Amino acid sequence: MKLGRLNHIGVATPSIADSIAHYRDVMGATHITEPFDLPEQGVKVCFVDTPTESGMNGTQIELIEPYDENSPINGFLAKNPAGGQHHVCFEVEDIAAAREWFEGQGKRILGPTRIGAHGTPIFFLHPKDMQGILTEIMETPQGEGH
Amino acid sequence: MKLGRLNHIGVATPSIADSIAHYRDVMGATHITEPFDLPEQGVKVCFVDTPTESGMNGTQIELIEPYDENSPINGFLAKNPAGGQHHVCFEVEDIAAAREWFEGQGKRILGPTRIGAHGTPIFFLHPKDMQGILTEIMETPQGEGH
Repeated sequence: MKLGRLNHIGVATPSIADSIAHYRDVMGATHITEPFDLPEQGVKVCFVDTPTESGMNGTQIELIEPYDENSPINGFLAKNPAGGQHHVCFEVEDIAAAREWFEGQGKRILGPTRIGAHGTPIFFLHPKDMQGILTEIMETPQGEGH
Repeated sequence: MKLGRLNHIGVATPSIADSIAHYRDVMGATHITEPFDLPEQGVKVCFVDTPTESGMNGTQIELIEPYDENSPINGFLAKNPAGGQHHVCFEVEDIAAAREWFEGQGKRILGPTRIGAHGTPIFFLHPKDMQGILTEIMETPQGEGH
């Protein structure tokens, strides 16, 4: 296992529209994707791009808003009504090998491997096994080597 | 105001030694700095580097452990004994201009501008004014353009 790109930090918000206004008007973000629904994950999603030395390919801010009353982030927002840092997501080259690795390390995986917001397979690791941080592992999109 | 690099995410931990072992042995981090004390901030600090397409210059994970019983992160760790995501830090070119900008936006700044873990001036913004996220603003180190 080799540490991959920090693809994004997941930020829960009660309103993606308000958060987009915040990142655009207060923080000065220039690249924000259109929000879209991920009903299987129970969230609406959009991404705020951040810069690196070589472009806007830095760690993204993934804004997530509950999709409906069964959203898995409703509990987080009940405790954090203004929103807040919800998870982090690291890239791996091979999701199956990564799943096997973390299982071998005794880390609890939350549910099956599924398709995430970037269209590649992902899974989540239990925060209690990951230094208190809900951690998403995501296969790097094809053609985006690192 | 233009969104700068996401310099680091701040992760509180009850033990930097344990967290270093986690990032090295479980996550596969290859570049982790030696821990050092920042007594004025009340924390011990070290940085885990993450990759981008062009090197190990991605968003860092800043591990912070309480320096003593007066540490400002003791309250966070009392609520989150395993540790967790504590803050995010964005770079700006001019810390004085950024301070003026956020003040003009009605955002509460926590204390004076001071020298942060990277040796450049920083300040923190109140999480209640920043979408629930304790936000650090940091002047980009000289010679590290972006």
